[in-house]
This record gives sequence, C-alpha cells and structure tokens, in this order.
Amino acid sequence: MNELVSKAQKAKELTGLLGASSTEEKNKALVKISKALLSQIPYILKENQKDLDAGRSNGFSEGLLDRLMLSETRIKDMASALTQLAELDDPVGGVTFEDTRPNGLKLKRVRVPLGVIGMIYEARPNVTVDAASLCLKTGNAVILRGSSSAIHSNKALVHVIHLGLLESSIPKEAVQLIEDTSRETAEKMFKLNDYLDVLIPRGGASLIQSVVEKASVPVLETGVGNCHIFIDDTAEHSMALDILINAKTQRPSVCNACETVLVHEEWAKLHFSSLVNSLITHGVELRGDDHAVRLDSRIVNATEEDWATEFLNLTLAVKIVTSVEDAISHINKYGSKHSEAIISENSNHVEKFFTFVDAAVLYHNASTRFTDGFEFGFGAEIGISTQKLHARGPMGLEALTSSKYIILGNGQIRS
Amino acid sequence: MNELVSKAQKAKELTGLLGASSTEEKNKALVKISKALLSQIPYILKENQKDLDAGRSNGFSEGLLDRLMLSETRIKDMASALTQLAELDDPVGGVTFEDTRPNGLKLKRVRVPLGVIGMIYEARPNVTVDAASLCLKTGNAVILRGSSSAIHSNKALVHVIHLGLLESSIPKEAVQLIEDTSRETAEKMFKLNDYLDVLIPRGGASLIQSVVEKASVPVLETGVGNCHIFIDDTAEHSMALDILINAKTQRPSVCNACETVLVHEEWAKLHFSSLVNSLITHGVELRGDDHAVRLDSRIVNATEEDWATEFLNLTLAVKIVTSVEDAISHINKYGSKHSEAIISENSNHVEKFFTFVDAAVLYHNASTRFTDGFEFGFGAEIGISTQKLHARGPMGLEALTSSKYIILGNGQIRS
Repeated sequence: MNELVSKAQKAKELTGLLGASSTEEKNKALVKISKALLSQIPYILKENQKDLDAGRSNGFSEGLLDRLMLSETRIKDMASALTQLAELDDPVGGVTFEDTRPNGLKLKRVRVPLGVIGMIYEARPNVTVDAASLCLKTGNAVILRGSSSAIHSNKALVHVIHLGLLESSIPKEAVQLIEDTSRETAEKMFKLNDYLDVLIPRGGASLIQSVVEKASVPVLETGVGNCHIFIDDTAEHSMALDILINAKTQRPSVCNACETVLVHEEWAKLHFSSLVNSLITHGVELRGDDHAVRLDSRIVNATEEDWATEFLNLTLAVKIVTSVEDAISHINKYGSKHSEAIISENSNHVEKFFTFVDAAVLYHNASTRFTDGFEFGFGAEIGISTQKLHARGPMGLEALTSSKYIILGNGQIRS
Repeated sequence: MNELVSKAQKAKELTGLLGASSTEEKNKALVKISKALLSQIPYILKENQKDLDAGRSNGFSEGLLDRLMLSETRIKDMASALTQLAELDDPVGGVTFEDTRPNGLKLKRVRVPLGVIGMIYEARPNVTVDAASLCLKTGNAVILRGSSSAIHSNKALVHVIHLGLLESSIPKEAVQLIEDTSRETAEKMFKLNDYLDVLIPRGGASLIQSVVEKASVPVLETGVGNCHIFIDDTAEHSMALDILINAKTQRPSVCNACETVLVHEEWAKLHFSSLVNSLITHGVELRGDDHAVRLDSRIVNATEEDWATEFLNLTLAVKIVTSVEDAISHINKYGSKHSEAIISENSNHVEKFFTFVDAAVLYHNASTRFTDGFEFGFGAEIGISTQKLHARGPMGLEALTSSKYIILGNGQIRS
C-alpha cells in the first residue's frame, strides 16, 4: 500500500481514541512538544539549512526564502505558541443545543472533532507546527502535505513533534507527514473521501484554486484577500490616511492587506493629492482608473486585471467612485469576500455598506489588517475562511470541530 | 447566454436585496404563495398528470409514481406548510458572537443568507416547494434543478410560486427552475462557483455521490442512511422488539429507517427466535451472518455488499456480535454516519457507543426514525446532513445561513 493511503488509514483508525482523549492529555502533549522543540533547535536549524541552500540554488526570491527560514527566535516563538494553546479552552464536548421533546426524548448537540484533517500547504514550515498543534488540541488526526522545498524542515519538525508525543498518551500517528511531495500524491489526497473528513489548503491563490476545483473531500477554503478600503465623502481626512497607509504598507504580503482604495469623488476634490503624496512617500506604486489618473499624473493606468489582483506587495489600485452604491458594486464584482472597510461619518452609508457588501469581515473606520484569529481574541487560527459554509473569517479552534446529536429515550417509537 | 448561466447570474444579482428583505416581506411572500397553491390546484394536478402518464408508460415502479404524484391533499399540505414556515423565527440577522477588544474594536458576528443555493433533486415535486420556501424564508435565491420525469409538475409549481411572489415585494427571480434537465447542464451547475454559493443534492445515493465527486461548488451532502440498531446483552426484550420493528417497518423507504440489526450473542441466546418471529410477521426478509443463519434457518446468508446497503425496503441485515466494541467497529466500517441506536440498560456501554460511533445522530433506547427536522423541533428541514462541515443531522433554517463579522472602529490601525 502506498504511503498516503496507509497513513490516512492509520489516521482514521485513531479518530475514536483522539476524540475521547481528555483535555488534560491533549494539553500535556502540547507542552511536551513545546519542550521537544526547544531541546532540538540545532537539529531543526541544520535540516532547515538544507532547504534554504536548495532554495537559494533554485533561485528562490528573498520573500520566499524568508518564509522558509527558521531561526532560534522563530522556533522559540513556536514553542511558546504551543504552551499558550494548551491554556485555551477545549471546544470538544461543548454542548451547543439542548431540548426535551414533547415525547420525552432528550436531545443534546455536542462538539466533536472533525476526524481526519488534510493540510495542503506551501513552503512555510511554521504551518507544520501550527496545524499539528491546532488539530491535536481539537482531537483531530492530521495528514500534513507541505511542499517539496520545505521537506527537510517538515520532516525534522514532525520528528520533533513525535518526540513530544512519545512522552504523552497521544499516539504519534495523530500527526503524520506525507513525505512524497509529488503532485500526483497531492491530487490523490484531494479524492480520499474514505479517510479524510476535510481538506484545508494554505497558500497562494493557485494552490487554493486547484484544491477547490479538484477535491471531492469537503474543503475549507482559506485566504485569498483582495481587500478594499472605501473612503466616503464624509471620511475624516487624517483617519482615512492613517488607515489606508496601515492597511497597505504595514505588512503588504499578507491576505488582509489592502489592494484597492475606492475614493469618493467629493472627498477626492479636497484630499486626493495629500493621499497620493502620503502613499508615494510610503513607497506605494499606484494604478488608477481614468479619473484618478486625470487627478494625479503620478498614477499609471490600471488594467482590468489589476482590479481583481491580490498584489501582496506595495502596488495599490485606485478608483474614484461617485457613491457608496458604486463602491459596493465594485467590491462585490472584484473582491474575494475577505475583508472590506468603509471610512465614513455617514451612518446610512455605513449601514448600506454592511448590508450589501458580501464578505467575511466588514469594518467601519478601522484597518482591514485586524482580520486575524489572535486579533479577534480566538487565541489561535488555522486560516481565514473566504467561503460561506461551516466557518467564515478567522477560524479558531471551534472551526476544527463538528457536532453529534446525542438522544436519550426510554423506548420511544415513531407513530 | 444559456439558460443556466443567465438564471444563475440573475439570482446572484438579487442576493443583496434578498438579504436585506425584512422578515415581514419574506413571510408575506410565503403566505401569498400558499394562497396561490390553493387557488391553482386543478392546474397543478393537470400538469402533474402529464408526468404521471409519462412515468407509467416508461414503466416507473409504484413507489416512484407515488413520489411523483400530487393530490389535492398533498397540495393543501404544501400550502399549510408554507403558512407554518411563515410563523417560524427568521434566523437572518441573529447575532452569534459579540466582543469588544482591548483596542476598542467592537466585533459582532451576524447570520446572513448563504446567497445562491443550487438544489439538485429527483422526481419529487414536493422538494420544489419545500426548497423554494425554505430558501425564501432565509433570504437566499434558489436555482432548482429537478428531474426530467417531474418537469411538468415542477414548471407548474414554479409558475404558481411566481404568481404568489408577484403579489409580494420579493422579485420572482428569487426562485428559478432550470427547464433544461440534461445531464450536461446539471454537470455545468456543479462547477458554477462564480454564481452558486452551495449545492444541495436531494435523492438517491448515486445522485449524491455524483455531486460530491464532481462539484467544485461547496456541497451540503444529505441523506444516505445505512442505519443500525444494536441490541445489547442487557436490552429490555419488548423495548428492543418495539424499537426495531418501528425503525424497520414503519416507513422502510426513508433514510432514517433501520437497515442492519446487530444483536449481542447473550441477548440472542434468550430472545433471537422471538425477534425473528416478530420481524417475519411484519413482512421483513432477513439476511444474516453465519452465526445468525445457524441460529435461525429462516435467515439467508448476507453478502459483503448487504452490510453496506441502504435497502429502503423490508430487507434487513442481521449480525450477531460479541460486544459493544464489536458493534461499534461494524457500524464505523459500514455505516453512512446518519443515525445509530443502542438498546441497552448498561450505561458504560451506552457511553462507549456515544463516544466511539461516528454518526450525525446517536440514540439510546429510541427508534432511529426520529432523525427529522420536525421531530427535532426545528419546524422545517432542507435535508439531513451526513457530512461533518457546516451542519450535521437534520438541517433547519439556520443551516441555510452563513455569517458576517461587522466591526466598528474609531480609527484603529494595527501596530
């Protein structure tokens, strides 16, 4: 039997036991893994170096190398995230509905683990530890499939996770890495409905697109963020600038960064040059519609594709709009249903924006950069859902659970 | 543009307006449709007769013809279900999470419609009215794709629904029927991610399987029920018989009927013949494992396939098991994760069964036939989910909603 199927089968066999594991047992495992990480820093760095060397000789960009790189600090951060996770409430077993029916049946709906989770991700070794620990905390078994460019790092991290698990009562097969990083194996994973309960892709738009298109296993779609900020006619000048600069430049490579600013024409009349000045000072390159280009010659013409692009760098699309309705219809046409903000002092416009924009997270007078499980107070995050089923927006521990109805009777039959 | 895409596009354009419709407007539409159904009974019956005639000449079974058939009583029942639905609480707008973060951001998560729902179903015209009304109540647009064998009935029912909607403020395009019932069009619908937010298949195992395998639009998997009843060693004799007879024979063609009984060998020693007598008296045909066949020669040998089959008739598989663990492992191997019951007076065994059986609904000392939105007190049901994401078990109105985070700030930026 091949590696994927035999590991997936093993994971499935464990689901009952993992679901029945106590919060204490799971937390102990997390703490043991945290300790194992701290004690194995030199080994992890040595293995990570192999991936970095290969990446460099394959001409990886600095950004990509940075995501791939582990350091003593980064490993210590992972270790401390694990002990923090151990302190969070365990959602498993929580009762989300209770009722006694007229016929005496007692109904209860309780949270249970999803079962076996397949993670498919790119060259970010931190996802290995993140995903493994969140799945452990929620009693799920996880099958990790990272990219070939991080294979040494991932193998080392999973080895260290297993060292931790061996000192706990949780079997090490709760966390398994698929070492065969071929595309064929990934595509087999998409169709492994007999063993996997859900697939979570983490990475760029094309990876996520491919999983959504090809998978028959249910998918939790995460992450692509083509986020907009709409500066309304009544927007307070300095607040609008501060929020836009923050959302665009504080960390441009992440999904909750701003990719297009929509500026109300009335506001633009008074403040457009100061906005453009400030953006250019922060190194932002602007691509605009005809109206924006007319207002400021430092802006180059945007293409149709630019409106739909998640730039993930310091490029920003700019469009002058005539109304809140105009802004809403642009966002619903080009947005990726992630995070959208309105800067306005007009409560009718805010209400309209909240009602008609179709996205996971909507902001009034705040930066889109807050869309994040930690900023939301969830204490953890497995990704940001941009789909509508199951979970929307930042997904914390609860998103990694399903439910079960438990019904107590005393002989009831249906008439 | 073809029918499917143009209707799907129209549906998507309506989502904002439908999401913003008040509960009163939606309820008024439901009442108007109810009235339209009552006033159009002769027309509906005449159109339904065309489908019945075609079905008969195509050699449809009596069971299939019965599902296809409408009658004055059945139409009146539909009409009264609509007025009852109008009286239920509207989940849209409900707040499911609220928090104020240390930085002053006010977070709120509210229920919103899913958007556009694609229903794919077989020759049951009642699903047309059911699905349309549940989607209307929850502010969703719906694209209905029924089977060709019910096309006259479905066209008539959607025409009547439109008559009702024309007397309300809800646009008639909230409910649209795809009149092209070709397989190619259905398969295009599976991939219409740009317009559809979710697909709900309703029908037999092969229809559901095909949607799950081929769709890239997220699917709410419903319905296949290979349900088991486990009679433990301590099961009370007459209770076990009553529950099994009810679960198997009260309505054998539905998904929550029992398909396999697992009998503890100790219980079988005392009560097996009386169980078999009672089942045979009720017209049940038994297929058993070697042990069961040895105990009673009226039982024929079951094939491997029988254990995995949803018979939907009076056939029942019978297996003698040695323990609750044995029963659990059989259920987890062959079950469809729908509804599973244990009849027992041993609370440890019940606890074990509840913990380790992986299914949407678990019963102690009650019939599996109760897995139903109305029996659960939800007042409505769009189907029974056998998957783990989004909703599990009977899906009422809440299962037809997603959520949106609404965040109020006063200039917050991320540091």
